[in-house]
Amino acid sequence: MSFHLSLNTGTTRDITLCDAVGVTAEAGLEYIGVWRNRVAEAGLENAAKMIADAGLKVSSLCRGGFLTAGDEAGQKAALEDNRAAIVEAATLGTRELIMVVGGLPAAAHVLGGRGDHNDKDIVGARARVADRLAELVPFAREHNVRLVLEALHPMYVADRAVLSTLKQALDLAAPHPADTVGVVVDTFHVFWDPELEEQIARAGREGRLASYQVCDFNLPIASDALLSRGMMGDGIIDFASISSWVAAAGYTGPVEVEIFNQEVFDQDPTLTVKTMKERWEDLVLPALEGRG
Amino acid sequence: MSFHLSLNTGTTRDITLCDAVGVTAEAGLEYIGVWRNRVAEAGLENAAKMIADAGLKVSSLCRGGFLTAGDEAGQKAALEDNRAAIVEAATLGTRELIMVVGGLPAAAHVLGGRGDHNDKDIVGARARVADRLAELVPFAREHNVRLVLEALHPMYVADRAVLSTLKQALDLAAPHPADTVGVVVDTFHVFWDPELEEQIARAGREGRLASYQVCDFNLPIASDALLSRGMMGDGIIDFASISSWVAAAGYTGPVEVEIFNQEVFDQDPTLTVKTMKERWEDLVLPALEGRG
Repeated sequence: MSFHLSLNTGTTRDITLCDAVGVTAEAGLEYIGVWRNRVAEAGLENAAKMIADAGLKVSSLCRGGFLTAGDEAGQKAALEDNRAAIVEAATLGTRELIMVVGGLPAAAHVLGGRGDHNDKDIVGARARVADRLAELVPFAREHNVRLVLEALHPMYVADRAVLSTLKQALDLAAPHPADTVGVVVDTFHVFWDPELEEQIARAGREGRLASYQVCDFNLPIASDALLSRGMMGDGIIDFASISSWVAAAGYTGPVEVEIFNQEVFDQDPTLTVKTMKERWEDLVLPALEGRG
Repeated sequence: MSFHLSLNTGTTRDITLCDAVGVTAEAGLEYIGVWRNRVAEAGLENAAKMIADAGLKVSSLCRGGFLTAGDEAGQKAALEDNRAAIVEAATLGTRELIMVVGGLPAAAHVLGGRGDHNDKDIVGARARVADRLAELVPFAREHNVRLVLEALHPMYVADRAVLSTLKQALDLAAPHPADTVGVVVDTFHVFWDPELEEQIARAGREGRLASYQVCDFNLPIASDALLSRGMMGDGIIDFASISSWVAAAGYTGPVEVEIFNQEVFDQDPTLTVKTMKERWEDLVLPALEGRG
């Protein structure tokens, strides 16, 4: 089995898509995972051509989601934005659209977004995610795109995703076809989960394991909690165990490295990709290949 | 049913036990939850007398635990420390010893404590917790003290507790008598859990619901992630739902407010207790009493 490393452009947040494609291709990688803002900046058709011309394939598009609005206007806007994301994924030639499902309206309000400061009902927010997902599935199927549910670390439950565990993601996906609704395993978000091994195996069995993303969990937690993701080996995650579970579940797709970390943003992207390759070969690949 | 509010002295971190007892009694509360460092500072016997003389009862002692050491010396030290904590709880007249089970040796190492920087094996760390717990149970029973397992928010899994969900806590408690190993529901730590309602009900059924602690989850997360706990109503937790689940599970004990928050530490403790009483009456008590 040969596994492929992919650079997620979140890792090189501050450079253009064109530059990210350049460092990825130069490093000899075959895949790139792209963020919508960098695609939009380059222009969708141009982005697709630029990536193809460099000989790269797109491992995933980040991201759709934010489906928890309680009001009709917010729900309509979310559906429109997600339909646009589905079209973008299809145009870029990837089946995998990563979905960050959204947080509580009360949190959005506190953080300056659209939301009702009284709406702290997490059970209700989850129900709205399920409803919006069902509305998006037919459109995703038509475009041959898979909605890939991402369980986020519970530190982001209020502001980013009321979806916190792989089990919950698989339960949410269950009513829909496996080729239209999948799940991603992102080590940072799920390494803590006592049911991780069992749920990764389940994701494999159910044919829903759509993406594997790796990065470390750094300590102490960064003062901006969003930036606590680290280069593999710099934090406390046991990549050998999780990677062996992912391989045992039958995953054979590209493996994305997605790191939000100020120090990584500030360094030369060529160095970032070089380090990422070394750590991948040292800490992740052996376990995927059963040599770990 | 009448429920009793309790001040956890973590909330008034910077004052002595004597002062905390003073503001608690003046505010007309009947319970206080105490931290070991403030008890040690006052002297154990003196602390017990001071609390009793003020007409207060101790709702819990914080905290035992930190059971994940991989080396023999670390394990021996942990058992000794926990036996001391059990004796302290008994002397203070509380049955409830809150247990924070400990994190990964690798994290302890990074943060300057005793630990092996290579030991990132979370599955192994959990197994050691189970082993140490079994070793402590007979001593706890002899002293009529309950080891109260605390599931901590997964943001603390690496450095504080490899125990992250109420389900996991109940599974860990299962081999032991319910009057010797219980669980605590701390809203900050568990509000995000998709299985929360079901596991609170289970804790009630199994007779293990030993403590209910309330505080809010503030946004954005504080730059020192430990200090992101907030006064009820200041964050995004839905206290009505969780409190109604706790009451439905048959909990009738004291309810502690435990807030680690720099702004709260910096204000007059009398104001803290006054605000805490108001928020309790407004946001927590009605749901506990079925008026929520």
